[in-house]
Amino acid sequence: MILPIFLIFSLLSSTSNAAVQDFCVADLKGPDTPTGYVCKKPAVVTVDDFVFSGLGAGGNTSNIIKAAVTPAFAEQLAGVNGLGISMARLDLAVDGVVPMHTHPGGSEVLIVVSGSICAGFISSSANKVYLKSLKKGDIMVFPQGLLHFQINAGKTPALAFVSFSSERPGLQILDFALFANDLPSEIVEKTTFLDDAQVKKLKGVLGGTG
Amino acid sequence: MILPIFLIFSLLSSTSNAAVQDFCVADLKGPDTPTGYVCKKPAVVTVDDFVFSGLGAGGNTSNIIKAAVTPAFAEQLAGVNGLGISMARLDLAVDGVVPMHTHPGGSEVLIVVSGSICAGFISSSANKVYLKSLKKGDIMVFPQGLLHFQINAGKTPALAFVSFSSERPGLQILDFALFANDLPSEIVEKTTFLDDAQVKKLKGVLGGTG
Amino acid sequence: MILPIFLIFSLLSSTSNAAVQDFCVADLKGPDTPTGYVCKKPAVVTVDDFVFSGLGAGGNTSNIIKAAVTPAFAEQLAGVNGLGISMARLDLAVDGVVPMHTHPGGSEVLIVVSGSICAGFISSSANKVYLKSLKKGDIMVFPQGLLHFQINAGKTPALAFVSFSSERPGLQILDFALFANDLPSEIVEKTTFLDDAQVKKLKGVLGGTG
Amino acid sequence: MILPIFLIFSLLSSTSNAAVQDFCVADLKGPDTPTGYVCKKPAVVTVDDFVFSGLGAGGNTSNIIKAAVTPAFAEQLAGVNGLGISMARLDLAVDGVVPMHTHPGGSEVLIVVSGSICAGFISSSANKVYLKSLKKGDIMVFPQGLLHFQINAGKTPALAFVSFSSERPGLQILDFALFANDLPSEIVEKTTFLDDAQVKKLKGVLGGTG
Amino acid sequence: MILPIFLIFSLLSSTSNAAVQDFCVADLKGPDTPTGYVCKKPAVVTVDDFVFSGLGAGGNTSNIIKAAVTPAFAEQLAGVNGLGISMARLDLAVDGVVPMHTHPGGSEVLIVVSGSICAGFISSSANKVYLKSLKKGDIMVFPQGLLHFQINAGKTPALAFVSFSSERPGLQILDFALFANDLPSEIVEKTTFLDDAQVKKLKGVLGGTG
Amino acid sequence: MILPIFLIFSLLSSTSNAAVQDFCVADLKGPDTPTGYVCKKPAVVTVDDFVFSGLGAGGNTSNIIKAAVTPAFAEQLAGVNGLGISMARLDLAVDGVVPMHTHPGGSEVLIVVSGSICAGFISSSANKVYLKSLKKGDIMVFPQGLLHFQINAGKTPALAFVSFSSERPGLQILDFALFANDLPSEIVEKTTFLDDAQVKKLKGVLGGTG
Repeated sequence: MILPIFLIFSLLSSTSNAAVQDFCVADLKGPDTPTGYVCKKPAVVTVDDFVFSGLGAGGNTSNIIKAAVTPAFAEQLAGVNGLGISMARLDLAVDGVVPMHTHPGGSEVLIVVSGSICAGFISSSANKVYLKSLKKGDIMVFPQGLLHFQINAGKTPALAFVSFSSERPGLQILDFALFANDLPSEIVEKTTFLDDAQVKKLKGVLGGTG
Repeated sequence: MILPIFLIFSLLSSTSNAAVQDFCVADLKGPDTPTGYVCKKPAVVTVDDFVFSGLGAGGNTSNIIKAAVTPAFAEQLAGVNGLGISMARLDLAVDGVVPMHTHPGGSEVLIVVSGSICAGFISSSANKVYLKSLKKGDIMVFPQGLLHFQINAGKTPALAFVSFSSERPGLQILDFALFANDLPSEIVEKTTFLDDAQVKKLKGVLGGTG
Repeated sequence: MILPIFLIFSLLSSTSNAAVQDFCVADLKGPDTPTGYVCKKPAVVTVDDFVFSGLGAGGNTSNIIKAAVTPAFAEQLAGVNGLGISMARLDLAVDGVVPMHTHPGGSEVLIVVSGSICAGFISSSANKVYLKSLKKGDIMVFPQGLLHFQINAGKTPALAFVSFSSERPGLQILDFALFANDLPSEIVEKTTFLDDAQVKKLKGVLGGTG
Repeated sequence: MILPIFLIFSLLSSTSNAAVQDFCVADLKGPDTPTGYVCKKPAVVTVDDFVFSGLGAGGNTSNIIKAAVTPAFAEQLAGVNGLGISMARLDLAVDGVVPMHTHPGGSEVLIVVSGSICAGFISSSANKVYLKSLKKGDIMVFPQGLLHFQINAGKTPALAFVSFSSERPGLQILDFALFANDLPSEIVEKTTFLDDAQVKKLKGVLGGTG
Repeated sequence: MILPIFLIFSLLSSTSNAAVQDFCVADLKGPDTPTGYVCKKPAVVTVDDFVFSGLGAGGNTSNIIKAAVTPAFAEQLAGVNGLGISMARLDLAVDGVVPMHTHPGGSEVLIVVSGSICAGFISSSANKVYLKSLKKGDIMVFPQGLLHFQINAGKTPALAFVSFSSERPGLQILDFALFANDLPSEIVEKTTFLDDAQVKKLKGVLGGTG
Repeated sequence: MILPIFLIFSLLSSTSNAAVQDFCVADLKGPDTPTGYVCKKPAVVTVDDFVFSGLGAGGNTSNIIKAAVTPAFAEQLAGVNGLGISMARLDLAVDGVVPMHTHPGGSEVLIVVSGSICAGFISSSANKVYLKSLKKGDIMVFPQGLLHFQINAGKTPALAFVSFSSERPGLQILDFALFANDLPSEIVEKTTFLDDAQVKKLKGVLGGTG
């Protein structure tokens, strides 16, 4: 069985235009849209658009939360643009904490690669707490938009990888949203029932004004 | 507990790129896409992109239908771009009517703020009529794409606000679609079973030709 | 032109099976699915499945927040099931506040019907505050999942209607999530940087334990 | 290279549970949901769930519109359930017409297999008419929810196949929605500007009351 | 009943901006996005953007597979952009074969217009074969992403039209993916268990290297 | 500031019904739908529905491919039902291979946790190969539905975790689809251009018939 190459290729080329969008690698300099960045021209896409090495090294945990989150979202890994998937690396030094936060745009799955982590989320319907101590190899799901957190539960550093159901899940850290901007203290207090002293203390620490 | 600000902010800035798309405010001068306009650059977005005052005043009901629809869709309220939600104001003078129409792109919920309204829609499966006289505070749902209408059912002007499950639900008013363009009368008659005189009368009134 | 009725109806009936799902009214006693409740049988659906009168009366604002939220979600208005739209009524007595909260499942548009409201939301990407004083007739958009709040900004009661881009947007009130359950105080403190006294005070007030 | 079968099959069986949902064949006797019927158990699915022979024969065009539409939606072809695709056969005798109608739930592509067809749709934004005479082999797109129609444009019967971007696109025929039910004539007239005599004539012909 | 035209048109024009996006005809020279091409300006859209005549003539089947696939995807028929629907024409000469392939982006429905076709697909969960001999008028569904094929099962040429649940379903032909590129033979062999001679033979025939 | 608990809780309970669906934990014994299993009753959901320990231990790689895939899809981790995210563990012994395969229902991101992996995918539009040698910490994206593979590229076992943009992405292994069932050899040969001896050899090895 010998196939005439040029005939096969004429079939190939007649259909190739129609099959163009296997992916839409983000052109980060181009305009953004509600569903992701405009696509790079296929001719300039290479395998490196689908590969990212930035999660290989631990983030710097020499900070107050003794933790670091290193994202591989559309901005870091252009190949996930439009695909509804992304990752991040989570380093927790001893006593490290990823503070209470939400991802407005996606659900999360976490896998513990080393150490142990106490993780939890709170449902909106009954304010029920879902709390678990996770050991190496355990995975846990955090549904979209719900408040959740991770705490190093052991005596050694912990490492986890998290994946999201969106290439741009967002990250709203509660304390930063409340205290690291110019939202007037009076409004913070009225809408959170926190005491004035507490609000001003944390505004001071986190660089907020007002 | 004193947090070193610069350390926290380094965490903040390392993740901020990844969380950029909380919203995609429409750049109305930029290109449109199947899922909405391209986004304004975040740096030029202000709170006014999320606020619209155009529904505060009643529309002009000094017209033949004695009614006015004032939209707050993506074109008026750029902040809804990509969010799947929009609103409109509905003013019905005494004897006012919002004629038979559809929204090809979204479902609608209406709330009566003053007066009373007779509203209805027709299902496609059995041509069943769902008809209700609504008083102040009542809400009614109109599923996507189905023919529906609203009539002032009282002796006073009526006001309602309607919301849509799309930032660009569209609005196809039956009479305008049939009679306010150059669709040949013969075709209108063949496809609607309406009499020639009726078609020509309404084409005349609504400015149609052919 | 006289149409033989029986012939037309044979066309009608031959296609009616295929056009059944104009809507899927929630059977609240049936199983739930990721995209909404299973549907009521079409034969038992009536117009009242699409109408709700529960937003006609103000909610009871004789409480500590001097505010009330009355929902018209799929559970109250079965006709919105699967349609991606719902509403709620917001009553704010003088000094009333809808505390800091998120809707994990949908974006929101608010319209002020009477009084004036100070409303705001905080973006996740830069913790930027979008704050506005809204008067009667103004509308404001709150993108999905972001922390936001509403405060009566006037000397009279305020009334607003809000719509959501989901028939079940969820409602996570920050204080209830943090303080009205059995999440251990130690974890709250570690993940929010709040002081122990502050946490215990609010846990006490809101009925939390641990 | 000889592969130990039992080892391979252990891999196979360990992953097979996780890959179950290639499709969701409709269990037409089970409950319906906003996104389609519940699925038949995989064990009872056969190739015949994915095959339908009902479009092989022409529909009966001995009726007033001299046309017939034969659907292959989820109810006829259970295998399309949840897949976002379906078909129908369109027979147009000489002078046959598919009257003005919409599909609330999907867009349509039509291909002329024999004869010639005059087809058109009307946009909602400017009531612009998109009208074309189609010959054998031509295809035409009708965007979701917009009014459109097809007329036999030749001296011979015409045959077309249409596909939809939904397995349950719906079909709302304008005349049936307006005149083949109990919607009161007064309301039809108020919401369509049609004359009383016209409305009553068509109600009579189509079996409507009121 | 005489309607003042200018008043009606003022209503019309006040709402026309809000109803703009009935469709998004692809601007094939503009940027691409994850959900389709940016839209042509409405002012330059004509009916010809929604019509395509390229499926009227049979493709050239004088090739080794004795078959031809002629697409009408977004690139050929700009009007389907963003609508989730497209078509293709399938010509199978006697002994013609559409080789094993997948459409990564959409499900397919096929209708036999002339001749007879043996078609099949293979499920992923149990590797079960769904195989059927189709005669004129039969339709068959191929769920998204699953391997499938079509073979002329008769003594005459066969013609079919296929529709997809995406305007850009993609087309990955197994043999081209494996043998018509520079994927090293060693990798092909390791990942398919095919013999070296077999791989090199087909690489030779299909123009592959490595 | 003392909040009257009972008043707050009346607010809480009045809204709790409306906020029920933060998640839809799969009831694996209940019916399946096109978008996932029906939900467990909220009252019986516990944190263990969101946690899975099955990825903690390596799969058995004592098989011909010297590899094992251990899934954490909706069937193993009921909490991901409807959330559009899932994971799997990939163990590759020395010389281990995950053979050529697709996931019809989702895109994949892989992170190398130990060892090194040669991974690749093939686009459908130009049959272009995207091939990369990945070291520990590297991540790579495989767009939905495209053929791809992973090979241990080092002298030690390799471990990777993969995430999917669907809770049920499916897994179609090419060799199993072609050779491990009753698809007649003649059809395999016609649709893949493989030689008869090759097909029969692999059918024999993989337990296929016909």
